[in-house]
Amino acid sequence: MASSLIRGKYVISPTGSGGVATRHDAAVYQEHGIIKDVGPYRELRGRHQFDGELGGPNFAIIPGLVNSHHHGRGVTTLQMGTCDDCLEMWILAGWGRRPYDHYLMTLYTALNMLESGTTAVMYNHPQTAAATLKADVDAVLRGFLDAGMRVAFSSYLRNQNRVVYAGDEEFLAVLPADLADDVRRYLSITEMSDDEYFAFCGEMHREYHNHASGKARVLLSPANVQWNSDEFLLRCKEEAARHQTGIHMHLVESLYQKDYGIRTWGKTPVEHLQDLEFLGPEVSFAHAVWLTEGDIELLADTGATVCHNASSNLRLKNGIAPVNPMLAAGVNVAMGTDSTAINDDDDLLQEMRLVSKLHRQPGLEASAITVDNVLAMATANAAAPTGFAGEIGALEPGRRADMVLIRLDVLEDPYLDPDLPAAEFVLGRARSQDVAAVIVDGQVVLQDGVHTRASKADVAKELREQLARPLEPETLATRRMAGRLSPYVERFYRSWPPAMGAPHYVYNSRT
Amino acid sequence: MASSLIRGKYVISPTGSGGVATRHDAAVYQEHGIIKDVGPYRELRGRHQFDGELGGPNFAIIPGLVNSHHHGRGVTTLQMGTCDDCLEMWILAGWGRRPYDHYLMTLYTALNMLESGTTAVMYNHPQTAAATLKADVDAVLRGFLDAGMRVAFSSYLRNQNRVVYAGDEEFLAVLPADLADDVRRYLSITEMSDDEYFAFCGEMHREYHNHASGKARVLLSPANVQWNSDEFLLRCKEEAARHQTGIHMHLVESLYQKDYGIRTWGKTPVEHLQDLEFLGPEVSFAHAVWLTEGDIELLADTGATVCHNASSNLRLKNGIAPVNPMLAAGVNVAMGTDSTAINDDDDLLQEMRLVSKLHRQPGLEASAITVDNVLAMATANAAAPTGFAGEIGALEPGRRADMVLIRLDVLEDPYLDPDLPAAEFVLGRARSQDVAAVIVDGQVVLQDGVHTRASKADVAKELREQLARPLEPETLATRRMAGRLSPYVERFYRSWPPAMGAPHYVYNSRT
Repeated sequence: MASSLIRGKYVISPTGSGGVATRHDAAVYQEHGIIKDVGPYRELRGRHQFDGELGGPNFAIIPGLVNSHHHGRGVTTLQMGTCDDCLEMWILAGWGRRPYDHYLMTLYTALNMLESGTTAVMYNHPQTAAATLKADVDAVLRGFLDAGMRVAFSSYLRNQNRVVYAGDEEFLAVLPADLADDVRRYLSITEMSDDEYFAFCGEMHREYHNHASGKARVLLSPANVQWNSDEFLLRCKEEAARHQTGIHMHLVESLYQKDYGIRTWGKTPVEHLQDLEFLGPEVSFAHAVWLTEGDIELLADTGATVCHNASSNLRLKNGIAPVNPMLAAGVNVAMGTDSTAINDDDDLLQEMRLVSKLHRQPGLEASAITVDNVLAMATANAAAPTGFAGEIGALEPGRRADMVLIRLDVLEDPYLDPDLPAAEFVLGRARSQDVAAVIVDGQVVLQDGVHTRASKADVAKELREQLARPLEPETLATRRMAGRLSPYVERFYRSWPPAMGAPHYVYNSRT
Repeated sequence: MASSLIRGKYVISPTGSGGVATRHDAAVYQEHGIIKDVGPYRELRGRHQFDGELGGPNFAIIPGLVNSHHHGRGVTTLQMGTCDDCLEMWILAGWGRRPYDHYLMTLYTALNMLESGTTAVMYNHPQTAAATLKADVDAVLRGFLDAGMRVAFSSYLRNQNRVVYAGDEEFLAVLPADLADDVRRYLSITEMSDDEYFAFCGEMHREYHNHASGKARVLLSPANVQWNSDEFLLRCKEEAARHQTGIHMHLVESLYQKDYGIRTWGKTPVEHLQDLEFLGPEVSFAHAVWLTEGDIELLADTGATVCHNASSNLRLKNGIAPVNPMLAAGVNVAMGTDSTAINDDDDLLQEMRLVSKLHRQPGLEASAITVDNVLAMATANAAAPTGFAGEIGALEPGRRADMVLIRLDVLEDPYLDPDLPAAEFVLGRARSQDVAAVIVDGQVVLQDGVHTRASKADVAKELREQLARPLEPETLATRRMAGRLSPYVERFYRSWPPAMGAPHYVYNSRT
């Protein structure tokens, strides 16, 4: 439909000022995928001609949700056999994960995400085999676009400290020679020079940043301060400026990563990035759990974004990011699932609820995140670093018509206090089963659980067949190698117990 | 069916030693509601005669879940109009909640709970109008039993400090005289003498503790140390011994409650209870967030149970209970939703997942709760304080045949690593939608989303009609009174900022 009117009992959208506006018995009018008008249903119905009407008095309408940090993996790491563990050990366990079809896997994860109302994703490609990287990421982008999703793409590169948070050869020197050789061979598969990486990013940018669909953006991506040289970080900064695009990277996800900064530069990683003049509004940091008060000020002052991954930070034993102090300081905080959400299913509605509950500090005087904060984090704030800033993340004229229709019957049944703000109960109670329809660019991509762009049953069937095949000998060999390597990696981190300071959040008390 | 064989691809049960045993292609054989045999499916099929067979190779079977702390409220406090807040203010906001039909409300909440596999509940009746208390709790018990659930019942009484954590008259003296009179009148509605309370408990015990259904137990219930005199606590202890039953109460739910102990006795509430010789294996404490290391030792030494309510503790700004140190010390830790679960729906599968993720302390060396711990907390450990100890909570001969069949197709689709322990992915991924059947005493009470004992649609319809009626003038008057009272209560707690010590859990760091 070139034009449509989408009606809701409530139309809920973040406002520019960090609040949320709820319109009652309202509608959104869209033409060719652009929101042209938002207001009272009856007025809009009189004011516009349209091809069709969607929604009705039994729905809440919210902006399409934006998952601001994601690595694909529709078949999850848990399903692939990796149990949750301390991040550093979990990464190693992933070395033996079986290879997969990037197109199918991405299409599957995109269809899953749409089911909880996620219409845009900041996808960060893990460092896969260099020889097939371009073909693999072409398949990834095709997967997202075929599902009907919007995607901000980046592909990270580690150019140092790839086994533990120390120089590769320094660490490999402590291993038995044959194991060290195996690890070198394994690392060489994904190895790329800096020049090759930036050439690849340039190519991706030319091909996709202004893709005909209008649904793709391409960003730069260092992996993290301990995984990249300062030269690499600075070159990312230059390339981002040249392409007028953003930078997305991991930062102080674990306590060890913070401590790496203290040991290496006598500074926190954020302070080091500030010294490099790397911080800025075009930069977004995933995780950022171990931020000091000073770090938070620096992020606020430079306009950087933090992508909060609450479930992942708990699952991988990284802690709870200080979201309340960040919001108080004015940091732009977004939300993502990191492909390891609480229910192992990338459900962003569920993740919003976890975030709503997790950041409620004890006692009357302590901070508690609001539902308005949480809605903004999953929409407008998350849109900011994607390259779609201002284009998505709110229901207002001029923005792309990306939205989610949530069925109210279960939420309001058998009773709902009429004075309760709609955002409170929609965010407090809506589950992915309550998602009635998902609209991207004005087009319905999901309706009553059925995808309009691809058959999930077919995708699942094909994945099932591919994954039923026996593991390749190389995968089994990598698993054996990772198993042999594991005690050495564990010893490395056990010899390095990082210091914890006074916490931002006090949730219980020993004394 | 008098006898049946229930088959699963996995039969998962806690063992006595705190671990979990998983049997593959196994079955549970039950006769007249008692488990008689558990073992390989083919062997059991040959060994027993039975009326019917349930389950199959596409199901996981776990023990019926036990919600160890609950207050009813199928129409939630949020639906009733009370937004989450700091516990002390939230309790006050609840004063103006509209009255409801205890039978319908309980039946509705019981049907909801069964849908996530909860077969038994420790229900703690809030202090409702004294004049109708017996009739109301009769209705409550009828609601649980009609749904097919097992219930450990208690009804709490506050006999002091009913407005804030200070003497009623001392606090009322600071109010305008007319407001103080209104509050006195309001409190008198639920007022009972200690003698009346214990007579009521005795009557409940006679009538229900050995109820013909075999599905009810009756416990004693002080409300909390700040809400009850020492005399009342000791009399509960005596009455429990006389009736050979348990005691269930709230404890150090909020930091203010811990601090009340320090101010009143120069001791923590747990230390005070130890001085009273109140602690013991028959006592279970809901919440217990603000336990010191010494408190944890006392609870472990005396064999008391802690009922952990992770969602509620976050929602009501109480913090995170130190579950890892409790488990390490050998405290019996159970799990409950307190009628304020993360998704506002009493889903215990979801609550298990929250608990699984929440207690994963940062870094390689720090503690993390295991799925085995969590399954035990929601089954065997939770059964311990209910009066059904040894009768439910595990799938082994001699126990009641309470169990949940979980459909595996979504969990394992499109792939699942065959080496992944079943408990990891069942607890990691199963949602209430995956609950195929729920069995209590060998009888199917829920099958493919349909309740066999009551029509949820009919119950919802009747509730809808009742709750659509206008609010009674008394309710509106109570709301106005609570609104007037609110700033005084807030001032009371603001003048009392409790000290926080060094935390058990450090999840982030300011420095």
